[in-house]
Amino acid sequence: MSKKAPWITYRPELKVLDCTIRDGGLINDSQFSDDVVKSVYETCIEAGIDYMEIGYMNSPRTFPRSQYGPWRHSFEEDLRRVVGDHSAKKTGLKLAAMLDAGDKSDWQTQPLPCKDSVLDMLRVACYASQIAEAVEMLHHCHELGYETALNIMAISTVKDAEIDQVLEIARDTPAQVVVVVDSNGNLYREQIDHLVRKYMKALDGTGKEVGMHAHNNLQLAFANTIEAIILGSNRVDSTMMGLGRGAGNCPTELLLGFLRNPKFKLRPVLKTIQEKILPLRETLDWGPSIPYHITGQLNAHPRYAMSFRDGDTPDDYVAFHDLMQREE
Amino acid sequence: MSKKAPWITYRPELKVLDCTIRDGGLINDSQFSDDVVKSVYETCIEAGIDYMEIGYMNSPRTFPRSQYGPWRHSFEEDLRRVVGDHSAKKTGLKLAAMLDAGDKSDWQTQPLPCKDSVLDMLRVACYASQIAEAVEMLHHCHELGYETALNIMAISTVKDAEIDQVLEIARDTPAQVVVVVDSNGNLYREQIDHLVRKYMKALDGTGKEVGMHAHNNLQLAFANTIEAIILGSNRVDSTMMGLGRGAGNCPTELLLGFLRNPKFKLRPVLKTIQEKILPLRETLDWGPSIPYHITGQLNAHPRYAMSFRDGDTPDDYVAFHDLMQREE
Repeated sequence: MSKKAPWITYRPELKVLDCTIRDGGLINDSQFSDDVVKSVYETCIEAGIDYMEIGYMNSPRTFPRSQYGPWRHSFEEDLRRVVGDHSAKKTGLKLAAMLDAGDKSDWQTQPLPCKDSVLDMLRVACYASQIAEAVEMLHHCHELGYETALNIMAISTVKDAEIDQVLEIARDTPAQVVVVVDSNGNLYREQIDHLVRKYMKALDGTGKEVGMHAHNNLQLAFANTIEAIILGSNRVDSTMMGLGRGAGNCPTELLLGFLRNPKFKLRPVLKTIQEKILPLRETLDWGPSIPYHITGQLNAHPRYAMSFRDGDTPDDYVAFHDLMQREE
Repeated sequence: MSKKAPWITYRPELKVLDCTIRDGGLINDSQFSDDVVKSVYETCIEAGIDYMEIGYMNSPRTFPRSQYGPWRHSFEEDLRRVVGDHSAKKTGLKLAAMLDAGDKSDWQTQPLPCKDSVLDMLRVACYASQIAEAVEMLHHCHELGYETALNIMAISTVKDAEIDQVLEIARDTPAQVVVVVDSNGNLYREQIDHLVRKYMKALDGTGKEVGMHAHNNLQLAFANTIEAIILGSNRVDSTMMGLGRGAGNCPTELLLGFLRNPKFKLRPVLKTIQEKILPLRETLDWGPSIPYHITGQLNAHPRYAMSFRDGDTPDDYVAFHDLMQREE
């Protein structure tokens, strides 16, 4: 038994990406006020966070501007209204946006060259079956000068052989990070181990980092993020107060309180949560609750629980349990 | 990398203790209605839970009956009003109560001989410094015919050498279970590993089991319980909807949904949560929130956060953060 206590120190190369606005946008059609986005931005800088994912870069064709807020499209003029002439060098914070595969994004035409944008990184999100398009997207974004990352979603629904294939393909892309994304909030410790080890092994020698994006259906988002870190993941996603679709995400405040790198500051995050995020609860429902727990354990998409929570009897847990049993 | 998936099966010897009424009693002076206690009791039976801890067996001298409900004292007539002539043989459920060391319990006089009681187990809770009294209590309860367990509380505040000493003493007691109790909700995965391995090693060859009692300050109660199970702990504590002091406990519904033993049934637990536990939220505050997170990460007693949450500004997280920084 080790007499040492590795938990009192830190790995300098571990980087945190706050995706409060991007992931949170899934529950309010990305209709955040400029004031909220600006607060999250300034807080990320103050808190020593490495990346802020400020929105999706999706197409107004599929996500019309009449319904969706500016953080669904991440047009340059909208970003600059909040972050001005943002500079990663001056602030220590890099800005990211997420492009979805599958005709959701105008990825060939919308991103500006990196030198003309406040964005530093583009993350490509795809399902395993969309990996071919994702590869094209990564090459294009890389050629525009961006850092790139690949988020392979809903990984708990993908067979091992398919994951192996996707990772083999990912090796030859410019993606600097490949992220384990537990969209269904289904995975627990031993499954995280299995996946993170698989990703580490597949990407060994490429210089690519393994990332972790966890959902909180089983109250395991923070635990699974810690687990990935222990196994060597150096890129982790979180959101303030866990804001995000369904059960939400790994809370930034728990993560920063846990990490021992003195550059991370908890207090500014608490201040923004208290003043800007907590008030959103008056109109938005997120965070662990029994319907999300049930979809998590069934490895089902959270949309079933979101729809139930929006109905007339959000706390009729037994009815939802019975409904999902019949669906199986 | 293992190709196997141990998580789809189970260990028959793993036993669950639901302490909803006992631990939950810390936030309402054990003032549960008979109806709620009876529902939890019947639910434990239906759900295949192994033990129900129905209350503290504390002294009316220190916890006067004018203030505290019957589940703080566990007098036989109060228990029987709810569980009748309970029989573990007939129901498959064993009943437990908890005796505190340190003049909180009349342990020499209050417990009846086991044969005259509906209780099957007495758990002795003590701080490490109270181990000498706990040993006497365990011997006495054992002689009365009960199964016994030893809960060493606030273990995150005890030095390794002291834990080793306590465990050496625990070896020679009749306690069938020694429980890792994270009263402050401070521990995370590697610390749980360190402790559970230490307990397993110290108790090796005695036939005693290691138990886990986690609190949810860092949203890690379920994760830490899983971790203990992976390492071989066969006795785990949980409460319905996580009801319990401060941030609450490992939720019974998450635990049963995770365990693969088909004897465990989730539906009756969801029904009782929906009908009996959720309504308690109208007057009681429990579950993870930022003040409990702060005390958890500082390894401080949750009483600071409970007191703050009872005040006029329960969501002034920054004020609580600053207050606790000054306290340090």
